[in-house]
Amino acid sequence: MHVSCSQPQLLQAVQKVHRAVASTTTMTALTGILFQADENMLTLQGTDLDLGIIYSFPVEVIIPGEILLPARIFTEMVRRLPPTNVTIQLLADNTVELTYMQSRVHLNSLDPNQYPSFPEIEGETTLEIDIKTLKDAIRKVSIASSSEDLRSIFSGILLEVNPKAQQFNLVATDTHRLALYRGSFVSSTIKTDDEINALISSRSLNELARLLPGEEGTVQITIGSAQIFACHDNLKLYARLLDGKFPHYQQVIPQSYTTRIKMSTRELLETTERAVLLARDEVKARSHIIILQIGETFKIKSEAAEVGHLEEELSAQIDGEPLTLALNGRYLLETLRILDSEEVVLELSSPLKPIVVKPEGQDNYFCLILPIRINTTVPEREYHG
Amino acid sequence: MHVSCSQPQLLQAVQKVHRAVASTTTMTALTGILFQADENMLTLQGTDLDLGIIYSFPVEVIIPGEILLPARIFTEMVRRLPPTNVTIQLLADNTVELTYMQSRVHLNSLDPNQYPSFPEIEGETTLEIDIKTLKDAIRKVSIASSSEDLRSIFSGILLEVNPKAQQFNLVATDTHRLALYRGSFVSSTIKTDDEINALISSRSLNELARLLPGEEGTVQITIGSAQIFACHDNLKLYARLLDGKFPHYQQVIPQSYTTRIKMSTRELLETTERAVLLARDEVKARSHIIILQIGETFKIKSEAAEVGHLEEELSAQIDGEPLTLALNGRYLLETLRILDSEEVVLELSSPLKPIVVKPEGQDNYFCLILPIRINTTVPEREYHG
Repeated sequence: MHVSCSQPQLLQAVQKVHRAVASTTTMTALTGILFQADENMLTLQGTDLDLGIIYSFPVEVIIPGEILLPARIFTEMVRRLPPTNVTIQLLADNTVELTYMQSRVHLNSLDPNQYPSFPEIEGETTLEIDIKTLKDAIRKVSIASSSEDLRSIFSGILLEVNPKAQQFNLVATDTHRLALYRGSFVSSTIKTDDEINALISSRSLNELARLLPGEEGTVQITIGSAQIFACHDNLKLYARLLDGKFPHYQQVIPQSYTTRIKMSTRELLETTERAVLLARDEVKARSHIIILQIGETFKIKSEAAEVGHLEEELSAQIDGEPLTLALNGRYLLETLRILDSEEVVLELSSPLKPIVVKPEGQDNYFCLILPIRINTTVPEREYHG
Repeated sequence: MHVSCSQPQLLQAVQKVHRAVASTTTMTALTGILFQADENMLTLQGTDLDLGIIYSFPVEVIIPGEILLPARIFTEMVRRLPPTNVTIQLLADNTVELTYMQSRVHLNSLDPNQYPSFPEIEGETTLEIDIKTLKDAIRKVSIASSSEDLRSIFSGILLEVNPKAQQFNLVATDTHRLALYRGSFVSSTIKTDDEINALISSRSLNELARLLPGEEGTVQITIGSAQIFACHDNLKLYARLLDGKFPHYQQVIPQSYTTRIKMSTRELLETTERAVLLARDEVKARSHIIILQIGETFKIKSEAAEVGHLEEELSAQIDGEPLTLALNGRYLLETLRILDSEEVVLELSSPLKPIVVKPEGQDNYFCLILPIRINTTVPEREYHG
């Protein structure tokens, strides 16, 4: 292989595929980026077998062929090259020579025959989704996926396709909270009327969102038997589906509420940040318990033993029954941070039933948070003293 | 104590003193920030006994007095408060109440009687130095101080005052390299004609540089028997002097050279960055050895066993004898990064004598780097093959 291309284009391509490259693996080939040059196009590929990314861009191809280079050192070197023309050439001894200006770098290459093939794109269901919608959905749902065990179903995001309604849902839960986003396709090819499900790792979907450009255009998603495929311009991505059954989440979603509060998203966010700072329970050390007290007014309270305590009253429109409950303030924070509406709505029913957090005026998204059971006599004594 | 002030001013003050607060200590009082309110001024103080910072600003003082609050939690809380008026009040039970809008936070306070006093400013030598000069000197010299043992003399910066010349030197060395900056005072009070020396930790001088504003004005430095004091407007800082004797560094500084190279600082920096990336010696794993080869042309070479190697030729004005030597590329990188001259000069004498790196056209600074002894037959075989 022998190609000539510009450093800025090469760097952009390398950065796109690099994040799919395996960082820890016993298969040396997976630590590399595969380069294939053919008909004035250079195609780069990275994969850790769970996620694979292919990106192509036009270059001057002097000799077609393929090479496999160690991803880390190659990426760091390309980042430091001057913004000029670079040639990449495979030499007879299987080293690869990069030249630029009067300089040259030799890198030892890996055996491209050990590199896995990109799976054939297969699947009877193909959705065309607006990029802006897909990015919004991934951003708002992935906050509820678990980052603890990346193989568990709770690290995944469920894609539910409803052919009749021409809609899709993205759903994630870590058992303490659940986020759901409903979106529409631009168009689709679906050969069934039944609902279609695919469980995809949150990491893969977030990498897809990162790779897609700005907000214009659409992306094709094909759901296969063992993976999904995404295609956009010169970019192809596959993500292996997670094994295991996502929980029957519908039964957890409250159908009614007794108390509804509407307030400024920003004010609730800032108060919650302060409350979380003073929310340390020595027993449930990671819970960051904050108390919501809804009566004539809406108050948030928290305390950290031996450090201090906080009590804030917020301006809010309150409808319904008085209620006091406790929840993990970090979960509320993470939800408020991804909302883009000026106002937020909380719907509550009882101290131990899920709280629904919704952006005011947007019906396509909510995040549900399970409260924490606390000894209700303690806050009375502690907070009204 | 009971005061009222604006959150942005309070935050600014807290952030100034916070970095002197002890993070690990057996004296609980040192983990706090001391607040003293008197005559419409609030004075904040933080110290770990090696470094102390005092900062004052005007507030509305309702009741004068002092309180000691845990620095970490207080700083994090003030950062999250709304940009409005905040009151700080000591209550009868020794808790401190912060109020803002309809909200309040209670923090447990520490015993201010356990807090050390700021040492009296004493010393017969006082220098008035341009802030811009002092910041420039600290930035350019501290790269050569060691960050490994913060109590060692090699973590310090030597301040040498020459009363006759009305000049000062800042000098640092970690035994592998040495940086020297020569500056002038604006004015001084000195009661001796002898040279005056003070060894100050690099950390303390860098905190001083961080605290001083933009580039206008001057700062007073008083050299006492056991510490130096710096004063500027409402800011006071003390730094305990390091024990131990700084090496006789003058004898290391080369008085002549056989080879002199002048080139673009940016080009040498970028080439060195690439060379360091491919500079891994398995035996001297932390050395990042790069080879400078000066003949008709100036070449930089490096190699990482099993990964690859690099050879670059740079445009340079070369005067003097041919020479090949090896050095730790990271040391050269750190020097080049702090230079602000377009061109850089390297002065060399022999493969094992120090290389002097100077900004072209600036005589008040240099950094000297000791070469590394390598088996010279190896580079011949490896790099000319």
